[in-house]
Amino acid sequence: MEVRVVHKVLKANEEFAQMVRERLGEAGVVALNLIGAPGSGKTSLIEAALRGLKERLRLGVIEGDPETTRDAERIAHLQAPVVQINTAGGCHLDAHLVYRALEALPLASLDLLLIENVGNLVCPVEFDLGESGRVAVVSVPEGHDKPAKYPKLFRTAQVVVLNKVDLMPFVDFDEGQFRSDLARLLNPGVPLLKVSCRTGEGVGEWVRWLQEVVERGPSSLRR
Amino acid sequence: MEVRVVHKVLKANEEFAQMVRERLGEAGVVALNLIGAPGSGKTSLIEAALRGLKERLRLGVIEGDPETTRDAERIAHLQAPVVQINTAGGCHLDAHLVYRALEALPLASLDLLLIENVGNLVCPVEFDLGESGRVAVVSVPEGHDKPAKYPKLFRTAQVVVLNKVDLMPFVDFDEGQFRSDLARLLNPGVPLLKVSCRTGEGVGEWVRWLQEVVERGPSSLRR
Repeated sequence: MEVRVVHKVLKANEEFAQMVRERLGEAGVVALNLIGAPGSGKTSLIEAALRGLKERLRLGVIEGDPETTRDAERIAHLQAPVVQINTAGGCHLDAHLVYRALEALPLASLDLLLIENVGNLVCPVEFDLGESGRVAVVSVPEGHDKPAKYPKLFRTAQVVVLNKVDLMPFVDFDEGQFRSDLARLLNPGVPLLKVSCRTGEGVGEWVRWLQEVVERGPSSLRR
Repeated sequence: MEVRVVHKVLKANEEFAQMVRERLGEAGVVALNLIGAPGSGKTSLIEAALRGLKERLRLGVIEGDPETTRDAERIAHLQAPVVQINTAGGCHLDAHLVYRALEALPLASLDLLLIENVGNLVCPVEFDLGESGRVAVVSVPEGHDKPAKYPKLFRTAQVVVLNKVDLMPFVDFDEGQFRSDLARLLNPGVPLLKVSCRTGEGVGEWVRWLQEVVERGPSSLRR
């Protein structure tokens, strides 16, 4: 019974996801869905992208949060078009929310849309937003066991960002186990970017990866 | 329509929560529901409690995870009765799952039951497990903005553990803002325990807080 209800919700979501995909396709916009735990550094990665790409690409941002507009305010400081979706306690974005948010963005004059999902490694994974690809964000202090414990996200991501690598010396993080769980078991061949938004390490690779995705087009992300 | 469905699910949950509460009451067991983001250190706090209390209290553990039995294996090493609930991708524990898990625990010979919820700051908050109280776990690298962004958990917790305080010098964590959001706006008077399971700092206070809750009984936690 519960399963049937979930399927219905997901079916409605899929219709809106298709509509989002069509609008993005018409406008020629690549959209990435950033999924990660609370505090993994999703907003900081978006800020780094805006700084690194502002001379080369036109970026827009959708910020999803259960409460507050703090992240959207951080982004607005960087002069990018940003829409805040406040889910009023909801645990994930869905395609209907994103479809409505698109109406408030100047799609025709964008190249890349970064969508920050609600901080959560489980629920957002079930909801296709009509995005071109998924960015799994995980940070070093969360521990090396996250891919094994939350496999669906890591299986369906087109890139994995391991953030806060500057904290590696101060925590017990088994990078061999992390890489083995991720690249051998869950998602062979997925690009892994090691980044510290705090020190700037690896930010260049993140920015370059984004630029290449836009240059090659969304079809380069299909698996 | 969606709202009605959620209410139905929550109503069924409330019936099982009541049954859990009755079984715990009959057995004289205090049960705490640990809610926090993935990698915030919930399992480490449970390990620390088992080590610190093994001479004084009889502890049992329920481990909730979307996949793997890694946490239950960590606990089993410490010789405590532990039941793993594998939610098969589900984003929270519910009272029915906990009720079933109680059947596999030697309730009559326990004083304290620690329930580790799925790593998630949003969904577990909606589901009463029949617990005596809630422990909100948040770690320093997640950032000081977590209470403001995920207020429901912090509003309903009987204690807040700020974990990984050993990382404070290496991240930008505004403790004044954190305390002000938490204690002034969300949950005035809630105890805040600063802990590092890695260095042992504050672990004594955590263990003492647990022992006092058991000594005073679950009614001491009601608000």
